[in-house]
Amino acid sequence: MELDTIAAISTPMGEGAIAIVRMSGEEAIMIADRLFKGNQLLSEVDTHTIHYGHLIDPETGDTAEEVMVSVMRGPRTFTREDVIEINCHGGLVSVNRVLQLVLNEGARLAEPGEFTKRAFLNGRIDLSQAEAVMDLIRAKTDRAMNVALRQIEGRLSKLIQSLRQTLLETLAHVEVNIDYPEYDDVEEMTNHLLLEKSKEVYEELVKLLETSKQGKILREGLSTVIIGRPNVGKSSLLNALVHENKAIVTDIPGTTRDVIEEYVNVKGVPLRLVDTAGIRETEDIVERIGVERSRQRLKEADLILLVLNYNEQVSEEDERLFEAVHGMDAIILVNKTDLEQKIDLEKVKELAREHTVITTSLLQEEGVNELEDAIASMFFSGNLEAGDLTYVSNSRHIALLTQAKKAMEDALVAIESHMPVDMVQIDLTRSWEILGEIIGESVHESLIDQLFSQFCLGK
Amino acid sequence: MELDTIAAISTPMGEGAIAIVRMSGEEAIMIADRLFKGNQLLSEVDTHTIHYGHLIDPETGDTAEEVMVSVMRGPRTFTREDVIEINCHGGLVSVNRVLQLVLNEGARLAEPGEFTKRAFLNGRIDLSQAEAVMDLIRAKTDRAMNVALRQIEGRLSKLIQSLRQTLLETLAHVEVNIDYPEYDDVEEMTNHLLLEKSKEVYEELVKLLETSKQGKILREGLSTVIIGRPNVGKSSLLNALVHENKAIVTDIPGTTRDVIEEYVNVKGVPLRLVDTAGIRETEDIVERIGVERSRQRLKEADLILLVLNYNEQVSEEDERLFEAVHGMDAIILVNKTDLEQKIDLEKVKELAREHTVITTSLLQEEGVNELEDAIASMFFSGNLEAGDLTYVSNSRHIALLTQAKKAMEDALVAIESHMPVDMVQIDLTRSWEILGEIIGESVHESLIDQLFSQFCLGK
Repeated sequence: MELDTIAAISTPMGEGAIAIVRMSGEEAIMIADRLFKGNQLLSEVDTHTIHYGHLIDPETGDTAEEVMVSVMRGPRTFTREDVIEINCHGGLVSVNRVLQLVLNEGARLAEPGEFTKRAFLNGRIDLSQAEAVMDLIRAKTDRAMNVALRQIEGRLSKLIQSLRQTLLETLAHVEVNIDYPEYDDVEEMTNHLLLEKSKEVYEELVKLLETSKQGKILREGLSTVIIGRPNVGKSSLLNALVHENKAIVTDIPGTTRDVIEEYVNVKGVPLRLVDTAGIRETEDIVERIGVERSRQRLKEADLILLVLNYNEQVSEEDERLFEAVHGMDAIILVNKTDLEQKIDLEKVKELAREHTVITTSLLQEEGVNELEDAIASMFFSGNLEAGDLTYVSNSRHIALLTQAKKAMEDALVAIESHMPVDMVQIDLTRSWEILGEIIGESVHESLIDQLFSQFCLGK
Repeated sequence: MELDTIAAISTPMGEGAIAIVRMSGEEAIMIADRLFKGNQLLSEVDTHTIHYGHLIDPETGDTAEEVMVSVMRGPRTFTREDVIEINCHGGLVSVNRVLQLVLNEGARLAEPGEFTKRAFLNGRIDLSQAEAVMDLIRAKTDRAMNVALRQIEGRLSKLIQSLRQTLLETLAHVEVNIDYPEYDDVEEMTNHLLLEKSKEVYEELVKLLETSKQGKILREGLSTVIIGRPNVGKSSLLNALVHENKAIVTDIPGTTRDVIEEYVNVKGVPLRLVDTAGIRETEDIVERIGVERSRQRLKEADLILLVLNYNEQVSEEDERLFEAVHGMDAIILVNKTDLEQKIDLEKVKELAREHTVITTSLLQEEGVNELEDAIASMFFSGNLEAGDLTYVSNSRHIALLTQAKKAMEDALVAIESHMPVDMVQIDLTRSWEILGEIIGESVHESLIDQLFSQFCLGK
């Protein structure tokens, strides 16, 4: 495949020790050579070697930057094309100057995700692996990173490929038998095989989809809301979660600095704390955004932490909050056990219904660990084994797996009700095609463009 | 020199395509080898080569990250020690995991600037070059970057070394002549030589110090305040400066996100726009912070842009603003020439005294170029030649040069008033020592520690 030469800044923007401008394509080494002054011509050096020197601005003849240039010739590279990485001083002016120089010499500014897209287009990785690259970069916890890493290594791809292989072999077998319909027992054997293999694929899909809820949580974080009357300790809870754990505060990728989300890593589960600004400012989300909108906000949450005061009786407002969280994933905290008990814990348990109740003294740092255990076991029963990490986490994959499962259900119904075998063939073929989309076989170009456009620049 | 092995994240924090964990020291390659699984042992590969593989967590035996490892053996490296650079996926979890692995294997977390400090301690660069590394990273414009780049290349160092050499040779010459005081004409020759050489050094120091104002502006930006009555167009001016130029918005180095400064690049001069939030919010700095504090703020500014309204007569408040900027570097803008003229331009010119007056219609984008020319020529007479860039920009250097100049003045006075030659020797020796401090000879360890602590992590 012939593609032009692309270039982008591949390190995060900001002041740092080192920044990288990366190029990929046929012209990459030549472009670098026209700018580089060192001991050797880059076009003459061995692949996968690093060279110290200076970039010279061709217009002025002046030294433009002090650099280390890595030369990597395809196909043993990230994109399978020739790749040049220019390591320069990590300032904004410096890295932009280096980028400008390579663009002036004929490289094109890469689109977001275009390096990874080339790795896909040039066949080094499939689509699900490419998608996992971005998941890895955005991972908020170790567990989430491991899920992405396994996916990059191709664990999900292999599973999908194996399911497709089973479907293909079954279809081939059926095809052969259809060609020899003169034997009665062949038909019976075909039906038997169809049923067995279809069940096998169906059950694998069900198992895979069962991991999707947890996969999504690992990937996107557990949207968490803290509610409770004023002065029950919501801020303290927030601070306890943020400070006792590694707080992960990130910008949203892109340029705006306005939106900052707060993530906390609770025993490997990334909590995305919603409305923390609200809690910090007004101490009460309900008060601030109105009851109706609060209910809506609660409905969208994956987890609600309802805080009560150990030192006060259950109020009418508390009861309304219990009502609001009914039927949702919630944990009830009775805080301030360092003060005198005035709350009726029996009543709390009754109001809590199915929800776990935990008593805490956030002031004395008591009960936080119990809370964290409760959160972790609520979403992940037992410990996750490191070796057992084929989670489906990507919405696109989940949707396709669900469709494939549906096609397999149709096939099973058709087999069991002794429908003509070509009806079953249609269902199996559909399932095979849908699974292909996950790994990027038979997907539309516009979908590919759209997927990679969500990547960050320089990847 | 024997130093332990240090490690740090060398790319800016944030989500990006690539992040780098760098190690330097005797153990660097061995530490990497214990974690790395690829085609070869890193301890057996050639220097300056790049290797694809995976880091394995020794505790679990699981793959921890997919990496490219660069192996560079000293002394042909940044620190002159063995250097390992691990390029990993640019996410927060990923890069922290890689750092944690190398720390677990025995590397020590580097202090800010410690890599550059080693380059200095190991004699690859002198102190003024090391300081320029950080200036380059923090450079806000191309010109500022060029100043830093020339300093890294050693242009200032060579100049200082040459001045010290002159001083040393003169001192040696004087020493020889003192040993043979029996000849009368020798004394006269000595005095003649002393005067000539001392003048030469003195004049070089004066020339160098003359660049310091501009050097400091290039390095730190020109602190600029926009003032004027409400509704004269201060916001429009701000926007015109920000949008017509490349706006350079940066965090202050470090961790806090609270303070954001706005830099604009005006023909190579970095304007640091002060109180832009104030202008955007209340349209009036004077109103907002009170007259007294405003005056103080104005006094600290390097440049004041005073905006008047073409469509209104000069008011008493305008006159007070003219008073406030008297004697300072200011430019007067008469804005809104798209409206009917009601202002008396003669009166404006009279009130402006020595200040330049420029008429603009920011609405119609007229006059901005004239303003920018005025700013550039106010601080840099004519164009800066690319080849002529030995600016002194660092406060520490300026202070030392000033002291050295003072010592040379003392020497010249002593020579001209025929003081004993050993008095002159003392002054010359002092000047020689002070200049040595700029390039890091004869400086105290605590000063070195303090200088490098201002660096960013991983450099």
